[in-house]
Amino acid sequence: MDKVMVGVIGAGRIGKIHIENLLRKLSNVELKVVADVKIDKTLEEWAKEMGIANLTTNVNEIFEDPTIEAVIIASSTDSHAEFIQRAAKAKKAIFCEKPIDTDISRIKETLKIVKEYGVKLMVGFNRRFDRNFMRVHEAVLSGQVGQPHIIKITSRDPSPPPIEYIKVSGGIFLDMTIHDWDMARFQADSEVQEVYANGAVLIDPKIGEAGDVDTAVAVLKFENGAMALIDNTRQAVYGYDQRVEVFGSIGCAMADNEATNTVRIYTAECTNLDTIPHFFLERYIESYATELQYFINCLLNDENPRPNGHDGLQNVLVAMAAQKSFEENRPVKLSEIEND
Amino acid sequence: MDKVMVGVIGAGRIGKIHIENLLRKLSNVELKVVADVKIDKTLEEWAKEMGIANLTTNVNEIFEDPTIEAVIIASSTDSHAEFIQRAAKAKKAIFCEKPIDTDISRIKETLKIVKEYGVKLMVGFNRRFDRNFMRVHEAVLSGQVGQPHIIKITSRDPSPPPIEYIKVSGGIFLDMTIHDWDMARFQADSEVQEVYANGAVLIDPKIGEAGDVDTAVAVLKFENGAMALIDNTRQAVYGYDQRVEVFGSIGCAMADNEATNTVRIYTAECTNLDTIPHFFLERYIESYATELQYFINCLLNDENPRPNGHDGLQNVLVAMAAQKSFEENRPVKLSEIEND
Amino acid sequence: MDKVMVGVIGAGRIGKIHIENLLRKLSNVELKVVADVKIDKTLEEWAKEMGIANLTTNVNEIFEDPTIEAVIIASSTDSHAEFIQRAAKAKKAIFCEKPIDTDISRIKETLKIVKEYGVKLMVGFNRRFDRNFMRVHEAVLSGQVGQPHIIKITSRDPSPPPIEYIKVSGGIFLDMTIHDWDMARFQADSEVQEVYANGAVLIDPKIGEAGDVDTAVAVLKFENGAMALIDNTRQAVYGYDQRVEVFGSIGCAMADNEATNTVRIYTAECTNLDTIPHFFLERYIESYATELQYFINCLLNDENPRPNGHDGLQNVLVAMAAQKSFEENRPVKLSEIEND
Amino acid sequence: MDKVMVGVIGAGRIGKIHIENLLRKLSNVELKVVADVKIDKTLEEWAKEMGIANLTTNVNEIFEDPTIEAVIIASSTDSHAEFIQRAAKAKKAIFCEKPIDTDISRIKETLKIVKEYGVKLMVGFNRRFDRNFMRVHEAVLSGQVGQPHIIKITSRDPSPPPIEYIKVSGGIFLDMTIHDWDMARFQADSEVQEVYANGAVLIDPKIGEAGDVDTAVAVLKFENGAMALIDNTRQAVYGYDQRVEVFGSIGCAMADNEATNTVRIYTAECTNLDTIPHFFLERYIESYATELQYFINCLLNDENPRPNGHDGLQNVLVAMAAQKSFEENRPVKLSEIEND
Repeated sequence: MDKVMVGVIGAGRIGKIHIENLLRKLSNVELKVVADVKIDKTLEEWAKEMGIANLTTNVNEIFEDPTIEAVIIASSTDSHAEFIQRAAKAKKAIFCEKPIDTDISRIKETLKIVKEYGVKLMVGFNRRFDRNFMRVHEAVLSGQVGQPHIIKITSRDPSPPPIEYIKVSGGIFLDMTIHDWDMARFQADSEVQEVYANGAVLIDPKIGEAGDVDTAVAVLKFENGAMALIDNTRQAVYGYDQRVEVFGSIGCAMADNEATNTVRIYTAECTNLDTIPHFFLERYIESYATELQYFINCLLNDENPRPNGHDGLQNVLVAMAAQKSFEENRPVKLSEIEND
Repeated sequence: MDKVMVGVIGAGRIGKIHIENLLRKLSNVELKVVADVKIDKTLEEWAKEMGIANLTTNVNEIFEDPTIEAVIIASSTDSHAEFIQRAAKAKKAIFCEKPIDTDISRIKETLKIVKEYGVKLMVGFNRRFDRNFMRVHEAVLSGQVGQPHIIKITSRDPSPPPIEYIKVSGGIFLDMTIHDWDMARFQADSEVQEVYANGAVLIDPKIGEAGDVDTAVAVLKFENGAMALIDNTRQAVYGYDQRVEVFGSIGCAMADNEATNTVRIYTAECTNLDTIPHFFLERYIESYATELQYFINCLLNDENPRPNGHDGLQNVLVAMAAQKSFEENRPVKLSEIEND
Repeated sequence: MDKVMVGVIGAGRIGKIHIENLLRKLSNVELKVVADVKIDKTLEEWAKEMGIANLTTNVNEIFEDPTIEAVIIASSTDSHAEFIQRAAKAKKAIFCEKPIDTDISRIKETLKIVKEYGVKLMVGFNRRFDRNFMRVHEAVLSGQVGQPHIIKITSRDPSPPPIEYIKVSGGIFLDMTIHDWDMARFQADSEVQEVYANGAVLIDPKIGEAGDVDTAVAVLKFENGAMALIDNTRQAVYGYDQRVEVFGSIGCAMADNEATNTVRIYTAECTNLDTIPHFFLERYIESYATELQYFINCLLNDENPRPNGHDGLQNVLVAMAAQKSFEENRPVKLSEIEND
Repeated sequence: MDKVMVGVIGAGRIGKIHIENLLRKLSNVELKVVADVKIDKTLEEWAKEMGIANLTTNVNEIFEDPTIEAVIIASSTDSHAEFIQRAAKAKKAIFCEKPIDTDISRIKETLKIVKEYGVKLMVGFNRRFDRNFMRVHEAVLSGQVGQPHIIKITSRDPSPPPIEYIKVSGGIFLDMTIHDWDMARFQADSEVQEVYANGAVLIDPKIGEAGDVDTAVAVLKFENGAMALIDNTRQAVYGYDQRVEVFGSIGCAMADNEATNTVRIYTAECTNLDTIPHFFLERYIESYATELQYFINCLLNDENPRPNGHDGLQNVLVAMAAQKSFEENRPVKLSEIEND
């Protein structure tokens, strides 16, 4: 085949990003159906403007359409596992937003079905497709930095989400650091053995009252001996601070923040640069298109895409271990979680 | 009005960029007709894929359509003046690619007609809309650098165009430096009084045989006392080097090249960064959308867009003065050209 | 007084640095006597070239000279405590190289005597006087970054010391990370509450055989709620990597490595920078002079210098806690060590 | 010989720098006599503190001392030629501060005598020994940038000298740009053929009243085809802006300003860096020691140092051509000046 026919489930914020990329930026792909649980006037108008022919509340129009080869799942998290399973049973390739689920046994059950039906599954950890972090990984893979020893990830949001969101988020280690667990595993090219996590409420006492922390650090030990250091905060007032560094036996690759522009203004008092891009839409917008094009290309070339279901599972396992580590104030082995 | 209906003349490389931006990135605009002198299969397919309803070889479909409010002229340079005049007479707003023409009296005649019919005209010096150079200008306008004293522009292409192109290009000062004349005038916020230009054949002797130079430098004196230094080359092997600096009485704003990514790789031998973006499509692609959106917004707000016809004329005048300066090896006042 | 008369004990590598600074760079200070346990021909020649009038093996010439107001102790670590005590009893101000001792009760006993005799004591954690780390601290003190939340310290040596050195070093957390414990405490402006440390042998198995690790990471929790992340390695092939970052409630200050020069070389393949300065003499040479001048100025102004005996003690306590944390694979509270 | 015995003439600001370097930083050199026309109490005290044994007003103590092998001339400009001639006749190697003289026939006469007596002469264009500009030149010499095409030099002072100084300075092209003529020739590795210079009074009208300009630009054409662009100003409020760039056939080497420190402070408003080093003492202090050590090493290895008398002469010739170019508003060939 030279083109992939896709259906998209979910036309919320992230679903719209995928749809726009499909229609405007990607090659070798055709969007046939968009399904969403609720279609209001705004969505209808947006769909019309985008030239979407088939907008439906009936997700079966995707699963039962034999011409649709791949399903992009961008619905709410609690529906991911079900839709993955249905898509697998319909023998369609799957791109699913992270996380697969927040319950480990449900993830495992879902992956079993995916395996049984032999369909391809990719999980949307888009940061792997950021041009900077890809370049770091390329340096790792090509041997430019040698064996990875120390991985450092800084991942700081510009401002906290609403408290209501915090309350149902599953905690910072599952909600926010999950991207960093994936990034660390991606760059280390190895699996996590042990996690030590710590945290504090330094930004907003309400976050503490909601049972979460707003500032977190973690140390990972990998099977290949590498160690990772991660730091998170819900509020970096200067913008969305996203950096990755891989130190290895023969070199070190460091990805700095993207700049808003390249201008320096020199004055008698100091030299000024504009602040870094504010949030993930500014920083990672391109990565979503790169990610989805890569998924499409994998299908066309019959290759198994990464990050896959295994990655989706591991990242949640690490999050669980981190949460346990923080609660019990001790390093926690991943095997403790897996064997739960 | 809350939306502008446009017709595009010319669907070559730059025309396609404008059309894609119109369809995919811009707001408050609708594309009604695309006209091109020659419509082949490839163009037809591209138009179909883009969802262009009306593709025609008959430019009258644009000029005679009373619902079309603005014309985007992206045809070959020799047709610009004619189409501007026709659009003016049809009372349509005009966005025209640079240059208006290479003949000064023809430019003046054209601008006269534009004035007579009272239509808005913007000329496509897109670099003014590069995020970095805009930021420099913002620093100038806001007073952060004070009164401009010295403007420095580096503008280097990665590789020379074909010799056949060089032969009909009008010479480096008209073909390549024209962007820099505009940038210097833009940043200085003043008009050029005198030009000294020099050049050499250092890249390819064939360029010399074609009667042109491949390396050029120029000094401009502005009416407000500022001076500008410009350097051009047809071949910077490391990529498309595009920098602007404005030094003023109380500060200095410097725009460096965009980076391909932000990664530094440290090894025992040296620290490496990837090369800068290769050419103008990589560097300036966003500026085309910014530029056209600005034009559309000016129409909606009934404001006069810049760069306008006056800028288009002045930039050609400076190019002529530079050519004369180079040929006669002496500084040439702009008034010498204007009074020709 | 407008000048301080000093005696120096120890003319090894670090002693020579202090002496050269005293003679060549510092103001308001006069070197009267240099004492060393062993004076060979090379040392004599060096002393002559430096214009040192009084070179002796008899340290009493310092302690018993009533005109000497301050003693600089740069002898071997095991003699520090004794010399501090003798200097204190002789009522002389003391600048002592780090560490005071590796035995906590001996440090406490020494500090008690210092307190009893009321003399000033400064301990030589020179990195506090690096122009970059001072600048970060200035940003912290002036409130530019707000309340410190996360402190990140990267401290990597270019190559491991000889195995013989490793064997008697006291372990990486006492020998190498001690600088980082001090830096973290300095920047956090708070005391360490708990330490989690981890390590691995990734560089040289012989270091493992000697009972030490060559790669180490640590997380600190401070009394003011801040957390610190530290990473160390004995071998960064690209040079001496020394960076500090303080993230706070209203900003973030980041000190990057010093550059060997500011040149970028752009080629068709990549952009190159020279490697960073190789080791501590290149990087920190100025900090030694700044440090000692600060000590002298404190004496002249009757101010209490920092880092002082308390800092010297705390840094060793943190090192002990880190070692215990690593050995027992659990976070260790500083109070566990203090109460040993 | 393994050590060079030197005498220094002139103990003003620049003489003191050389003397301090001789005594404190250089190897294989011994200072025997310092001569100055006027010895006051301050100078005597300084000399005493520096340990200078022989301070005299009688310059003959240098010329007539057979043990002195090299003379460092740091006296006032009008005495340079005389002292060079006397040193040459005394068969001593000569390091002379720039310029040799401001009169071309006097320079030529002086160089003739130097040649006649076969002594080595180095002229103190210290910027060639700045670590950054040396690195650029190394890139040129090693072929990393290929054949030089365009050289760009930015050289901006932080604030103008007193008007009284301006009046006797010989004009900006001789007083300030002379460093840049030398730098351009150094980097181009070729001789200047033609100069175009322009200038303006943009900083202080009093400078204009004194017959000089405070802002200057110049274009040089070299015999090897390269071109140089230079810009100068007497007042860059943000500090001493000193940059050099060599663009060549296969690459480009750019030396940026030195930083005061490497710290970036990120805040909600912008990212801040401290201003660049204020003036030449901060920026070039190391270059003076590097320069003098190089001179001493040349003597020890019997090599001819550069920049030499020829360089000293050429730089003044270019300055004269630039002045003429500015006055007559036309490019001036160097041959016009040489044949005056």
